[in-house]
Amino acid sequence: MTQRPPLSKLDLVPLRSITLGGHEISRRKVIETAKTLRTNSGLFDDGMLRAARQALSAYERNIRPGSVAGCGRAIDKLATRANLSSETNARRIIHRFRRDLRLFARRNRLHRVVVIHVASTEPIKKLSAIHESWAGLSRALATRRTSPLPASSLYAVAAIEEGMPYVNFTPSLGVDVPAIRELAAASGVPIMGSDGKTGETLLKTVLAPMFRERHLKIESWVGHNVLGNGDGRILASPANKAAKLRNKDRVIAAMLGYRPQTRTSIEYVESQYDWKTAWDRICFRGFLGTRMSLQFTWQGSDSILAAPLVIDLARLADYHAERGRGGVMTHLACFFKSPMGGREHGFTAQVEMLHRYVAAN
Amino acid sequence: MTQRPPLSKLDLVPLRSITLGGHEISRRKVIETAKTLRTNSGLFDDGMLRAARQALSAYERNIRPGSVAGCGRAIDKLATRANLSSETNARRIIHRFRRDLRLFARRNRLHRVVVIHVASTEPIKKLSAIHESWAGLSRALATRRTSPLPASSLYAVAAIEEGMPYVNFTPSLGVDVPAIRELAAASGVPIMGSDGKTGETLLKTVLAPMFRERHLKIESWVGHNVLGNGDGRILASPANKAAKLRNKDRVIAAMLGYRPQTRTSIEYVESQYDWKTAWDRICFRGFLGTRMSLQFTWQGSDSILAAPLVIDLARLADYHAERGRGGVMTHLACFFKSPMGGREHGFTAQVEMLHRYVAAN
Amino acid sequence: MTQRPPLSKLDLVPLRSITLGGHEISRRKVIETAKTLRTNSGLFDDGMLRAARQALSAYERNIRPGSVAGCGRAIDKLATRANLSSETNARRIIHRFRRDLRLFARRNRLHRVVVIHVASTEPIKKLSAIHESWAGLSRALATRRTSPLPASSLYAVAAIEEGMPYVNFTPSLGVDVPAIRELAAASGVPIMGSDGKTGETLLKTVLAPMFRERHLKIESWVGHNVLGNGDGRILASPANKAAKLRNKDRVIAAMLGYRPQTRTSIEYVESQYDWKTAWDRICFRGFLGTRMSLQFTWQGSDSILAAPLVIDLARLADYHAERGRGGVMTHLACFFKSPMGGREHGFTAQVEMLHRYVAAN
Amino acid sequence: MTQRPPLSKLDLVPLRSITLGGHEISRRKVIETAKTLRTNSGLFDDGMLRAARQALSAYERNIRPGSVAGCGRAIDKLATRANLSSETNARRIIHRFRRDLRLFARRNRLHRVVVIHVASTEPIKKLSAIHESWAGLSRALATRRTSPLPASSLYAVAAIEEGMPYVNFTPSLGVDVPAIRELAAASGVPIMGSDGKTGETLLKTVLAPMFRERHLKIESWVGHNVLGNGDGRILASPANKAAKLRNKDRVIAAMLGYRPQTRTSIEYVESQYDWKTAWDRICFRGFLGTRMSLQFTWQGSDSILAAPLVIDLARLADYHAERGRGGVMTHLACFFKSPMGGREHGFTAQVEMLHRYVAAN
Repeated sequence: MTQRPPLSKLDLVPLRSITLGGHEISRRKVIETAKTLRTNSGLFDDGMLRAARQALSAYERNIRPGSVAGCGRAIDKLATRANLSSETNARRIIHRFRRDLRLFARRNRLHRVVVIHVASTEPIKKLSAIHESWAGLSRALATRRTSPLPASSLYAVAAIEEGMPYVNFTPSLGVDVPAIRELAAASGVPIMGSDGKTGETLLKTVLAPMFRERHLKIESWVGHNVLGNGDGRILASPANKAAKLRNKDRVIAAMLGYRPQTRTSIEYVESQYDWKTAWDRICFRGFLGTRMSLQFTWQGSDSILAAPLVIDLARLADYHAERGRGGVMTHLACFFKSPMGGREHGFTAQVEMLHRYVAAN
Repeated sequence: MTQRPPLSKLDLVPLRSITLGGHEISRRKVIETAKTLRTNSGLFDDGMLRAARQALSAYERNIRPGSVAGCGRAIDKLATRANLSSETNARRIIHRFRRDLRLFARRNRLHRVVVIHVASTEPIKKLSAIHESWAGLSRALATRRTSPLPASSLYAVAAIEEGMPYVNFTPSLGVDVPAIRELAAASGVPIMGSDGKTGETLLKTVLAPMFRERHLKIESWVGHNVLGNGDGRILASPANKAAKLRNKDRVIAAMLGYRPQTRTSIEYVESQYDWKTAWDRICFRGFLGTRMSLQFTWQGSDSILAAPLVIDLARLADYHAERGRGGVMTHLACFFKSPMGGREHGFTAQVEMLHRYVAAN
Repeated sequence: MTQRPPLSKLDLVPLRSITLGGHEISRRKVIETAKTLRTNSGLFDDGMLRAARQALSAYERNIRPGSVAGCGRAIDKLATRANLSSETNARRIIHRFRRDLRLFARRNRLHRVVVIHVASTEPIKKLSAIHESWAGLSRALATRRTSPLPASSLYAVAAIEEGMPYVNFTPSLGVDVPAIRELAAASGVPIMGSDGKTGETLLKTVLAPMFRERHLKIESWVGHNVLGNGDGRILASPANKAAKLRNKDRVIAAMLGYRPQTRTSIEYVESQYDWKTAWDRICFRGFLGTRMSLQFTWQGSDSILAAPLVIDLARLADYHAERGRGGVMTHLACFFKSPMGGREHGFTAQVEMLHRYVAAN
Repeated sequence: MTQRPPLSKLDLVPLRSITLGGHEISRRKVIETAKTLRTNSGLFDDGMLRAARQALSAYERNIRPGSVAGCGRAIDKLATRANLSSETNARRIIHRFRRDLRLFARRNRLHRVVVIHVASTEPIKKLSAIHESWAGLSRALATRRTSPLPASSLYAVAAIEEGMPYVNFTPSLGVDVPAIRELAAASGVPIMGSDGKTGETLLKTVLAPMFRERHLKIESWVGHNVLGNGDGRILASPANKAAKLRNKDRVIAAMLGYRPQTRTSIEYVESQYDWKTAWDRICFRGFLGTRMSLQFTWQGSDSILAAPLVIDLARLADYHAERGRGGVMTHLACFFKSPMGGREHGFTAQVEMLHRYVAAN
């Protein structure tokens, strides 16, 4: 989106000025992941892989061990990079992350670091009183034996404390904690989330407004997703799947203003690799109660759909911070299934919010 | 759409104050058509039919013979109501129509008549120099042995000369003639068209903007329509089909700003009756040139989708005229595949144009 | 199938000679069920309902209270007809069923009664040593406080002990118990099951052989079913759903000779009523490992697909018994998802088995 | 099919003993075609291409100029290999082909040559009295200025006169001429055709028997095909398309025994390259006239589906000739949309015919 008008008019960081780094729990090399995407999923071509080899090696050198705090057993099993599960105190983990981020910036002589969370979906984390204020949470982070926050939120705290913008591209908790939002507001750090709107839900948010405006009453909306990549393997675990489905499902009622019967399901089918097939069937009633239907099949590569949005978000978060602004970046709602700080889910309306931001800058 | 906010806030004519009348070329009774829709297409229920019987009889009494001028042989064959094809001079036909319209208004003590064209699709009519100005066209209407305009446009001239708003819900020529638009502007009569956006094209105009905004490059968009009602039978004739396909096809390029490979086809399958099934397959390229696809199947009743839009248009045209306004009603673009006087095809953007009209009234 | 050649050549009981009766757990009247199917699902027409009214009343008079033994809590809740759950001794229930069956035959002066099980799916029942021989099971039926068999099997025992053919049209246990098969063999009573092959699985059993013969290697077969009738409500309960999915899933590997990734799921969506929509996606590899796919959407009325098969089975079981034959009716495999006594799942091959039976009779 | 039981038990020519040659009208190199399939359609992988390079060069050396007689203007335009259209006398063309075939066999020290026609579809050729007997046709081939046969049939005559088996894998006329069949019978040369059953029609021939056996009455069967390869470009020409559609359409009525409404259409969409997408929608009536439907989308690579069938046919035709047999190879019906010499279209029944042939050999 940042490559075409009107966003291309903004003075965004050039693509070639971006340096990649990250936290990772698996020992698998980035170049191996890329090769596997090539072989199993048919993405890229051999020429692209060759051209990217050096850049991927440079990326690899900027990767540090992540955390599996509160990620559930399905994710625990993937943590081959280091003895991550023995590390339990939240403040220590945050401390480690902050040092990693500072070193990454210093060694690469970076003007700014933007942290974007793209890890596999964590189980739903229930919040309690200690999550209400930063004072309380801060104390719990320091003193509790086990972390009161899942990994996605520990990365958020580390980023914000370092003054770096944080964006949560997953359904995990991330920055969506009153105490952390308080910290971000107080620090003037831009934040946003959650859950990148890449495929099936994107379609939902253009179709549901159409039914609403035409006064066609939706009776049921059934969505069935089949995917086979690492995210899919994690989502085969019911605890992790619950967080994902919650976002996919509640979008529709939010846009319609009433609650049709919705059923969203996800199946992990390994031989699909990075390809996600979504089948949706929408039954609706028109004039005189007549029953009609729409069904669609969406066939997309999960990584390929997500990657350009992550790049867009990095550039737009950097741009926002560069202008000295902080807080929730509500103008980025069109990138998310559950946009923070706003109730608008319709994609076109969200795009207009972004266009208005551009016009005002 | 006029039953829900914000349109429901307008002071529109109440539904019960509307009286139906029309021009028709077939001898078939309205009540018979309704019964056939019930039996073959499964629309309504027996209770609705019984409740509507009296209203349909009243409607029947307000029906006068139409015209088949320039409608092609497929439509000629349906003209069982009177010896319509012997009538050739355009001005005489217009004269007859005007008298019908005046009598309809007088006998039913109507405050205003709105003319909405809903006849089967005419073959494409090529315009020439005489269609450029009302002076020239007016002369040709009076003097030429065969009509220089198809029926849809004769109805338009009759309506406008009577000061009645005219809306073209079909792909036929209607009011889309420079000379007739000149007449409407001069007379201060509201006009609009053309081709009601009921199903497949409605979907196109919410999906294409999504692909555009996400910078997903559409390579091909194939649409295949299957339908079995009277309109379908006429569209089985290649001359009539051409007009329909033109509108369905060009919408996409207009919204994208480039021209993907598009193929739209229509098949007449009698046993489908009033049900239209549209299958669309969209192939697009995402990040790094990756090929992905979306396909959808839309299953709707053509009449049931069109009817409420026709009612909405009648009420909104009446409202516009009531406020003394004339000319092209560009704020009604969201109802049409080929909206006059505007280049916006995206449905959501069109709906906003309508909402702005409401807000300003 | 019995109305067309070659089955129509058999000397089967005429349709008008068949009298309906049954066991039922709900207090709901048959005529009410029929009316609801008319109103909610759009089945039949008003004329058919009127024509059937008298026959349905006669049927209603032949209905006796059933049993919910081993049916699980989801089915227990539907048992409004009598205080069924207080009845626990299996032999007493069987005794009651046998008397019902005898009285039904006597009062209606019937030449033969065929029992066909069409109740909602029971949870999977694990078998143990007592189910291995009729001697052991017979003792357990008489002495145990709670029934060692679910209702579907109690009906089977009652039917066989009365010398009446028994057919299990559901995925429930029914006659698929070594001890009961022993009893049927010893008594010379025809039996068959299980699980009527009406829709999605029928398609699987014509498509899978095609892939097998063309040497196209199936990687994954995902099936997603959406339905809204009473059966669907019961299948929303995980225990009951398990039995159903087991049959739907294992059919494919049995036909292919290898085990592709299969995922079959069922969602209960009330507004679908009696209509079942199945979406299946089959990914396969052809020459040189090329990945290709087939997807289909099946839209059928569950009751309408099942009813004629139940009539066929009644006539064919009666025919078999009339000729003095007993045991497993393997020639009826084409009617079942899990045909007893045979490993052939391919539909065409099963139909040929039936045709050979016809030719030999 | 020849790689798996029971066909794998036959003593067929080993794959490595097969030498490729052919007639071609375009100057394009085989290796270029393979590369284009790799790049545009994503077939094979780079390793396969490298491994095949030498074999493709050897193949290229065995390619001789073909003919465009009776192929229509769409195919004429592709004839870049030589000045083919100036050559008009049929006997001379046949003479040239025969010499090519003999030289191909001699230079490669081949035991037998099998000719399989895989060229683009020719327009429908109407037969007349001269096509009834070989005496008459033979005279016309020698004396007429323009060929009384299209290229597909000239190849057939050349092959048969050389005693080489001929198989027509296309909808073109080929060997389906009484006079040529007479020649083949008299010469004891095996022949077969026509039109390889690769995708959509294959599905039709497993689904239609299912509907027939279950007594589900098909009202309409609509098939829409989208493809983008060279064959597709030729089929964009109405004359060539007609031959193709005839075969695709008439299969259904042949299997059902009645004639439902069928509509089969083909659209050329260049960006689909070698991938063919077929969407079919089948509307049928079940018990009590209830309307139900099945729709499927088939996504396959045309070349990849055809190639293994062509290899199978070469091996099976060689096997038949090796055993000294000639005439129409009716046991190969399962490979064809319009199998010669047999009225069985059901795929499973056709496969059994082939299995019976294997058992008898």
